[in-house]
Amino acid sequence: MFSNTQCSGKHLIIDIKNIQNPETPNNIEKLKTMMDNICEKYEFQVLNKIEHKFEPQGLSIIYLLSESHMTIHTFPERNYIAFDLYTCRNYPNNDVYTEIHKYIMEETNATYEPPTIIDRHF
Amino acid sequence: MFSNTQCSGKHLIIDIKNIQNPETPNNIEKLKTMMDNICEKYEFQVLNKIEHKFEPQGLSIIYLLSESHMTIHTFPERNYIAFDLYTCRNYPNNDVYTEIHKYIMEETNATYEPPTIIDRHF
Repeated sequence: MFSNTQCSGKHLIIDIKNIQNPETPNNIEKLKTMMDNICEKYEFQVLNKIEHKFEPQGLSIIYLLSESHMTIHTFPERNYIAFDLYTCRNYPNNDVYTEIHKYIMEETNATYEPPTIIDRHF
Repeated sequence: MFSNTQCSGKHLIIDIKNIQNPETPNNIEKLKTMMDNICEKYEFQVLNKIEHKFEPQGLSIIYLLSESHMTIHTFPERNYIAFDLYTCRNYPNNDVYTEIHKYIMEETNATYEPPTIIDRHF
């Protein structure tokens, strides 16, 4: 229905569940390294980063990208991380997002959950 | 399939197209007022805000919420705004998000686009 030229980008949503190491949702350095590695590999330009540690637990990390945004919100009490990546890149298919999903599953050793990839349109 | 207690929140995605006033995607104050009004009405606690003005045009505005995040990315050259709201609130249905969608359609005078509302799960 839509050509690539009408696509404003892709949105990747991952619900990361049953993480093997239950410390991971509290490990801000590990999570930021994971986000940094994705940005480096796919050449997403990070314009700003903000984070918040909740009491007694839980983290939010948000990267403002030249290509839009990447976010993580963690719920250690549920051993769960919500991951989002929206970029305005006009990738011809879902391969890059499928690779990023695979990398995140490996880094978190989480139960496999299929990614949700949404095409956004002008 | 899932009970509310397993729901980690809802994610609202809106592609805002054909905005009646083509200045709106460049009007950072108007867009932030719209975001602030949503936060006030639904009692989302804003923990941090970041924004970026692109050259020659385009804006990104990100609110880090106690309830997760709200983002806007604008593409004035396409008369388009990408809106996202993810909250970890366990609303029993989509009514709040449907209201927010209606408010945004009114504020932007955009062509009606149905909202995409995604339940996220632990």
